[in-house]
Amino acid sequence: MVRKIPEGDNRLRLVCPDCGYIAYENPKVVVGSVATLGGKILLCKREIGPRRGYWTLPAGFLELDETTQDGAIREALEEASARIEILTLLAVYNIRRISQVQLIYRAKLLAPDIAPGPESQEVGLFAWDDIPWPDIAFPSVHWALNHHREIGDETVFTLRTNPPGETGDY
Amino acid sequence: MVRKIPEGDNRLRLVCPDCGYIAYENPKVVVGSVATLGGKILLCKREIGPRRGYWTLPAGFLELDETTQDGAIREALEEASARIEILTLLAVYNIRRISQVQLIYRAKLLAPDIAPGPESQEVGLFAWDDIPWPDIAFPSVHWALNHHREIGDETVFTLRTNPPGETGDY
Repeated sequence: MVRKIPEGDNRLRLVCPDCGYIAYENPKVVVGSVATLGGKILLCKREIGPRRGYWTLPAGFLELDETTQDGAIREALEEASARIEILTLLAVYNIRRISQVQLIYRAKLLAPDIAPGPESQEVGLFAWDDIPWPDIAFPSVHWALNHHREIGDETVFTLRTNPPGETGDY
Repeated sequence: MVRKIPEGDNRLRLVCPDCGYIAYENPKVVVGSVATLGGKILLCKREIGPRRGYWTLPAGFLELDETTQDGAIREALEEASARIEILTLLAVYNIRRISQVQLIYRAKLLAPDIAPGPESQEVGLFAWDDIPWPDIAFPSVHWALNHHREIGDETVFTLRTNPPGETGDY
Protein backbone atom coordinates (compact mmCIF):
# COMPACT_ATOMS: atom_id res chain seq x y z
CA MET A 1 0.00 0.00 0.00
CA VAL A 2 1.17 3.54 -0.74
CA ARG A 3 -0.09 6.86 0.59
CA LYS A 4 -1.58 9.10 -2.09
CA ILE A 5 -4.53 11.43 -2.66
CA PRO A 6 -7.09 9.57 -4.79
CA GLU A 7 -8.79 11.47 -7.62
CA GLY A 8 -11.72 13.52 -6.34
CA ASP A 9 -10.44 13.33 -2.75
CA ASN A 10 -8.46 15.87 -0.73
CA ARG A 11 -6.63 13.65 1.76
CA LEU A 12 -3.83 11.11 1.74
CA ARG A 13 -5.22 7.55 1.77
CA LEU A 14 -3.69 4.09 1.77
CA VAL A 15 -3.98 2.92 -1.83
CA CYS A 16 -2.94 -0.38 -3.39
CA PRO A 17 -0.61 0.48 -6.30
CA ASP A 18 -1.69 -2.64 -8.19
CA CYS A 19 -5.49 -2.70 -8.01
CA GLY A 20 -6.27 0.84 -6.79
CA TYR A 21 -8.13 -0.37 -3.69
CA ILE A 22 -8.44 2.45 -1.15
CA ALA A 23 -8.22 1.43 2.52
CA TYR A 24 -9.97 4.30 4.30
CA GLU A 25 -8.82 4.77 7.87
CA ASN A 26 -11.39 6.43 10.11
CA PRO A 27 -11.85 7.07 13.81
CA LYS A 28 -13.12 4.19 15.91
CA VAL A 29 -16.13 4.13 18.19
CA VAL A 30 -15.67 3.05 21.80
CA VAL A 31 -18.86 2.09 23.64
CA GLY A 32 -19.18 1.69 27.38
CA SER A 33 -21.35 2.27 30.40
CA VAL A 34 -21.61 3.59 33.90
CA ALA A 35 -23.63 0.70 35.29
CA THR A 36 -24.98 0.95 38.80
CA LEU A 37 -26.70 -1.24 41.36
CA GLY A 38 -27.89 0.23 44.66
CA GLY A 39 -25.90 3.38 43.91
CA LYS A 40 -22.64 1.50 43.43
CA ILE A 41 -20.71 1.69 40.18
CA LEU A 42 -19.21 -1.22 38.24
CA LEU A 43 -15.48 -0.85 37.55
CA CYS A 44 -12.95 -3.25 36.00
CA LYS A 45 -9.21 -3.48 36.71
CA ARG A 46 -7.45 -3.84 33.37
CA GLU A 47 -5.54 -7.03 32.62
CA ILE A 48 -4.30 -5.63 29.28
CA GLY A 49 -2.43 -2.55 28.14
CA PRO A 50 -2.64 0.37 27.94
CA ARG A 51 -2.89 1.07 31.67
CA ARG A 52 -2.79 -2.53 32.86
CA GLY A 53 -3.64 -2.71 36.57
CA TYR A 54 -5.71 0.48 36.53
CA TRP A 55 -9.47 0.75 36.89
CA THR A 56 -11.84 1.60 34.07
CA LEU A 57 -15.48 1.42 33.06
CA PRO A 58 -16.55 -1.61 30.99
CA ALA A 59 -15.96 -0.31 27.46
CA GLY A 60 -14.37 -1.27 24.17
CA PHE A 61 -14.44 -0.99 20.40
CA LEU A 62 -17.78 -1.23 18.66
CA GLU A 63 -17.83 -4.16 16.23
CA LEU A 64 -19.27 -4.32 12.71
CA ASP A 65 -22.99 -5.03 12.51
CA GLU A 66 -23.61 -4.02 16.12
CA THR A 67 -25.55 -1.11 17.59
CA THR A 68 -23.86 1.14 20.13
CA GLN A 69 -26.28 -0.08 22.81
CA ASP A 70 -25.58 -3.74 22.02
CA GLY A 71 -21.86 -3.02 22.02
CA ALA A 72 -22.02 -1.52 25.51
CA ILE A 73 -24.01 -4.55 26.74
CA ARG A 74 -21.44 -6.93 25.18
CA GLU A 75 -18.49 -5.12 26.75
CA ALA A 76 -20.03 -5.32 30.25
CA LEU A 77 -20.59 -9.04 29.71
CA GLU A 78 -17.09 -9.69 28.30
CA GLU A 79 -15.15 -7.64 30.83
CA ALA A 80 -17.19 -8.20 34.00
CA SER A 81 -19.63 -11.05 33.26
CA ALA A 82 -22.21 -8.37 34.02
CA ARG A 83 -25.72 -8.25 32.65
CA ILE A 84 -26.81 -4.65 32.17
CA GLU A 85 -29.80 -2.75 30.85
CA ILE A 86 -28.99 0.38 28.85
CA LEU A 87 -30.75 3.54 29.93
CA THR A 88 -29.82 6.75 28.06
CA LEU A 89 -26.61 8.05 26.57
CA LEU A 90 -24.64 9.98 29.19
CA ALA A 91 -21.80 11.41 27.12
CA VAL A 92 -19.95 11.54 23.83
CA TYR A 93 -16.24 12.19 24.30
CA ASN A 94 -13.74 12.96 21.56
CA ILE A 95 -10.19 11.72 22.09
CA ARG A 96 -8.79 13.25 18.95
CA ARG A 97 -5.14 12.26 19.39
CA ILE A 98 -6.05 8.58 19.17
CA SER A 99 -9.04 9.18 16.85
CA GLN A 100 -11.62 7.76 19.22
CA VAL A 101 -15.25 8.72 19.69
CA GLN A 102 -16.44 7.35 23.03
CA LEU A 103 -20.15 6.82 23.71
CA ILE A 104 -20.84 6.17 27.39
CA TYR A 105 -24.30 5.04 28.49
CA ARG A 106 -26.05 5.15 31.82
CA ALA A 107 -26.98 1.58 32.62
CA LYS A 108 -28.54 -0.56 35.29
CA LEU A 109 -26.70 -3.63 36.54
CA LEU A 110 -29.36 -6.34 36.53
CA ALA A 111 -27.76 -8.67 39.07
CA PRO A 112 -24.87 -8.41 41.53
CA ASP A 113 -23.13 -11.43 40.02
CA ILE A 114 -20.00 -10.05 38.41
CA ALA A 115 -16.67 -11.71 37.67
CA PRO A 116 -13.55 -10.72 35.74
CA GLY A 117 -13.45 -11.66 32.05
CA PRO A 118 -10.18 -12.39 30.19
CA GLU A 119 -9.31 -8.68 29.91
CA SER A 120 -9.92 -7.85 33.58
CA GLN A 121 -7.82 -8.68 36.65
CA GLU A 122 -10.61 -7.85 39.03
CA VAL A 123 -14.06 -6.26 38.98
CA GLY A 124 -15.94 -4.43 41.72
CA LEU A 125 -18.92 -2.35 42.72
CA PHE A 126 -17.85 0.94 44.26
CA ALA A 127 -19.69 3.52 46.31
CA TRP A 128 -18.64 7.04 45.28
CA ASP A 129 -16.29 7.51 48.23
CA ASP A 130 -14.64 4.14 47.64
CA ILE A 131 -13.74 4.71 43.97
CA PRO A 132 -9.97 4.17 43.60
CA TRP A 133 -9.38 7.66 42.18
CA PRO A 134 -5.57 7.53 42.00
CA ASP A 135 -5.80 4.28 40.05
CA ILE A 136 -8.31 5.30 37.38
CA ALA A 137 -7.01 4.33 33.93
CA PHE A 138 -8.03 7.21 31.65
CA PRO A 139 -9.15 10.86 31.83
CA SER A 140 -12.46 10.02 30.16
CA VAL A 141 -13.26 7.58 32.99
CA HIS A 142 -12.91 10.49 35.41
CA TRP A 143 -15.16 12.60 33.19
CA ALA A 144 -17.83 9.94 32.90
CA LEU A 145 -17.89 9.21 36.63
CA ASN A 146 -18.22 12.90 37.46
CA HIS A 147 -20.81 13.53 34.76
CA HIS A 148 -22.81 10.55 35.99
CA ARG A 149 -22.77 11.96 39.51
CA GLU A 150 -23.71 15.49 38.33
CA ILE A 151 -26.79 14.15 36.57
CA GLY A 152 -27.90 12.13 39.58
CA ASP A 153 -31.50 11.03 39.17
CA GLU A 154 -32.41 13.50 36.40
CA THR A 155 -34.08 11.81 33.46
CA VAL A 156 -33.90 14.79 31.09
CA PHE A 157 -30.43 16.27 30.95
CA THR A 158 -27.96 17.74 28.51
CA LEU A 159 -25.69 15.14 26.99
CA ARG A 160 -22.15 15.55 28.31
CA THR A 161 -19.04 16.09 26.16
CA ASN A 162 -15.34 16.72 26.88
CA PRO A 163 -14.91 19.16 29.78
CA PRO A 164 -13.88 22.60 28.43
CA GLY A 165 -10.33 22.57 27.13
CA GLU A 166 -9.78 18.88 27.86
CA THR A 167 -8.66 16.59 25.07
CA GLY A 168 -7.98 13.38 26.99
CA ASP A 169 -4.25 13.47 26.25
CA TYR A 170 -1.87 12.87 29.12
CA MET B 1 -5.13 -11.04 3.65
CA VAL B 2 -7.02 -14.04 5.02
CA ARG B 3 -9.95 -14.18 7.43
CA LYS B 4 -9.11 -15.93 10.70
CA ILE B 5 -9.68 -15.56 14.45
CA PRO B 6 -6.47 -14.19 15.99
CA GLU B 7 -5.25 -15.71 19.27
CA GLY B 8 -7.07 -14.14 22.24
CA ASP B 9 -9.85 -12.81 20.02
CA ASN B 10 -13.31 -14.21 19.34
CA ARG B 11 -14.07 -12.82 15.87
CA LEU B 12 -12.91 -13.30 12.32
CA ARG B 13 -10.44 -10.57 11.32
CA LEU B 14 -8.47 -9.77 8.18
CA VAL B 15 -4.97 -11.07 8.88
CA CYS B 16 -1.85 -10.93 6.71
CA PRO B 17 -0.61 -14.54 6.39
CA ASP B 18 3.00 -13.33 6.02
CA CYS B 19 3.49 -10.77 8.78
CA GLY B 20 0.45 -11.40 10.99
CA TYR B 21 -0.79 -7.80 10.71
CA ILE B 22 -4.46 -7.58 11.75
CA ALA B 23 -6.60 -5.10 9.82
CA TYR B 24 -9.47 -4.43 12.23
CA GLU B 25 -12.66 -3.36 10.50
CA ASN B 26 -14.96 -1.29 12.66
CA PRO B 27 -18.08 0.81 12.19
CA LYS B 28 -17.62 4.29 10.81
CA VAL B 29 -18.81 7.55 12.32
CA VAL B 30 -20.92 9.89 10.20
CA VAL B 31 -21.15 13.48 11.45
CA GLY B 32 -23.66 16.04 10.26
CA SER B 33 -25.95 18.85 11.25
CA VAL B 34 -29.40 20.34 11.09
CA ALA B 35 -28.27 23.93 10.48
CA THR B 36 -30.85 26.68 10.52
CA LEU B 37 -31.09 30.37 9.73
CA GLY B 38 -34.31 32.25 10.43
CA GLY B 39 -36.09 28.95 10.96
CA LYS B 40 -35.07 27.55 7.56
CA ILE B 41 -33.05 24.35 7.29
CA LEU B 42 -29.99 23.78 5.11
CA LEU B 43 -30.31 20.82 2.73
CA CYS B 44 -28.05 19.55 -0.06
CA LYS B 45 -29.05 17.70 -3.23
CA ARG B 46 -26.60 14.85 -3.71
CA GLU B 47 -24.31 14.84 -6.75
CA ILE B 48 -22.91 11.42 -5.79
CA GLY B 49 -24.32 7.99 -5.06
CA PRO B 50 -26.00 6.49 -3.16
CA ARG B 51 -29.22 8.43 -3.78
CA ARG B 52 -27.83 10.92 -6.31
CA GLY B 53 -30.37 13.67 -6.97
CA TYR B 54 -32.01 13.33 -3.54
CA TRP B 55 -31.84 15.80 -0.68
CA THR B 56 -29.85 15.26 2.50
CA LEU B 57 -28.38 17.08 5.48
CA PRO B 58 -24.73 18.12 5.22
CA ALA B 59 -22.99 15.06 6.67
CA GLY B 60 -20.16 12.66 5.97
CA PHE B 61 -17.50 10.38 7.40
CA LEU B 62 -15.49 11.63 10.34
CA GLU B 63 -11.78 11.79 9.47
CA LEU B 64 -8.79 10.75 11.59
CA ASP B 65 -7.56 13.39 14.05
CA GLU B 66 -10.83 15.32 13.93
CA THR B 67 -13.46 15.90 16.61
CA THR B 68 -17.09 15.14 15.79
CA GLN B 69 -17.93 18.84 16.05
CA ASP B 70 -15.12 19.83 13.68
CA GLY B 71 -16.19 17.09 11.28
CA ALA B 72 -19.75 18.43 11.15
CA ILE B 73 -18.42 21.96 10.52
CA ARG B 74 -16.16 20.67 7.72
CA GLU B 75 -18.97 18.74 6.03
CA ALA B 76 -21.23 21.83 5.95
CA LEU B 77 -18.36 23.78 4.40
CA GLU B 78 -17.47 21.09 1.84
CA GLU B 79 -20.99 20.25 0.75
CA ALA B 80 -22.68 23.64 0.93
CA SER B 81 -19.90 26.24 1.38
CA ALA B 82 -21.76 26.94 4.61
CA ARG B 83 -20.24 28.34 7.77
CA ILE B 84 -21.98 26.91 10.83
CA GLU B 85 -21.71 27.08 14.58
CA ILE B 86 -22.32 23.81 16.41
CA LEU B 87 -24.87 23.92 19.22
CA THR B 88 -25.65 20.60 20.96
CA LEU B 89 -25.89 17.04 19.78
CA LEU B 90 -29.42 16.29 18.56
CA ALA B 91 -29.24 12.56 17.90
CA VAL B 92 -27.15 9.41 17.64
CA TYR B 93 -28.52 6.99 15.06
CA ASN B 94 -27.36 3.41 14.51
CA ILE B 95 -27.55 2.12 10.94
CA ARG B 96 -26.39 -1.36 11.78
CA ARG B 97 -26.71 -2.93 8.32
CA ILE B 98 -24.04 -0.60 6.95
CA SER B 99 -22.18 -0.34 10.29
CA GLN B 100 -22.64 3.41 10.67
CA VAL B 101 -23.01 5.49 13.80
CA GLN B 102 -24.45 8.88 12.84
CA LEU B 103 -24.01 11.89 15.11
CA ILE B 104 -26.26 14.79 14.08
CA TYR B 105 -25.79 18.20 15.69
CA ARG B 106 -28.09 21.18 16.00
CA ALA B 107 -26.27 24.08 14.38
CA LYS B 108 -26.66 27.72 13.47
CA LEU B 109 -25.93 28.83 9.92
CA LEU B 110 -23.77 31.89 10.37
CA ALA B 111 -24.47 33.54 7.00
CA PRO B 112 -26.96 32.98 4.18
CA ASP B 113 -24.18 32.55 1.61
CA ILE B 114 -24.36 28.92 0.58
CA ALA B 115 -23.30 27.22 -2.64
CA PRO B 116 -22.99 23.62 -3.81
CA GLY B 117 -19.63 21.93 -3.24
CA PRO B 118 -18.31 19.16 -5.53
CA GLU B 119 -20.59 16.52 -3.95
CA SER B 120 -23.80 18.60 -4.21
CA GLN B 121 -25.91 19.45 -7.25
CA GLU B 122 -27.77 22.16 -5.43
CA VAL B 123 -28.19 23.52 -1.90
CA GLY B 124 -31.09 25.35 -0.32
CA LEU B 125 -32.69 26.75 2.80
CA PHE B 126 -36.12 25.27 3.40
CA ALA B 127 -39.01 26.30 5.60
CA TRP B 128 -40.64 23.22 7.16
CA ASP B 129 -43.54 23.18 4.69
CA ASP B 130 -41.22 23.52 1.71
CA ILE B 131 -38.98 20.55 2.55
CA PRO B 132 -38.99 18.21 -0.49
CA TRP B 133 -40.23 15.22 1.53
CA PRO B 134 -40.65 12.75 -1.36
CA ASP B 135 -37.06 13.45 -2.41
CA ILE B 136 -35.30 12.99 0.91
CA ALA B 137 -32.29 10.69 0.49
CA PHE B 138 -32.24 8.55 3.65
CA PRO B 139 -34.50 7.48 6.54
CA SER B 140 -32.17 9.07 9.08
CA VAL B 141 -32.61 12.45 7.37
CA HIS B 142 -36.35 12.12 7.99
CA TRP B 143 -35.65 11.19 11.62
CA ALA B 144 -33.29 14.11 12.19
CA LEU B 145 -35.64 16.66 10.62
CA ASN B 146 -38.56 15.44 12.71
CA HIS B 147 -36.51 15.22 15.90
CA HIS B 148 -35.21 18.73 15.31
CA ARG B 149 -38.76 20.00 14.95
CA GLU B 150 -39.97 18.12 18.06
CA ILE B 151 -37.29 19.74 20.17
CA GLY B 152 -38.08 23.23 18.90
CA ASP B 153 -36.45 25.84 21.12
CA GLU B 154 -35.80 23.57 24.09
CA THR B 155 -32.25 23.80 25.34
CA VAL B 156 -32.40 20.80 27.68
CA PHE B 157 -33.81 17.74 25.96
CA THR B 158 -33.30 14.02 25.73
CA LEU B 159 -30.86 13.04 23.01
CA ARG B 160 -32.70 11.34 20.16
CA THR B 161 -31.95 7.85 18.81
CA ASN B 162 -33.51 5.57 16.16
CA PRO B 163 -37.31 5.72 16.30
CA PRO B 164 -38.66 2.53 17.93
CA GLY B 165 -38.26 -0.47 15.65
CA GLU B 166 -36.54 1.51 12.89
CA THR B 167 -33.15 0.36 11.65
CA GLY B 168 -32.66 2.67 8.68
CA ASP B 169 -32.79 -0.21 6.17
CA TYR B 170 -34.99 0.21 3.16
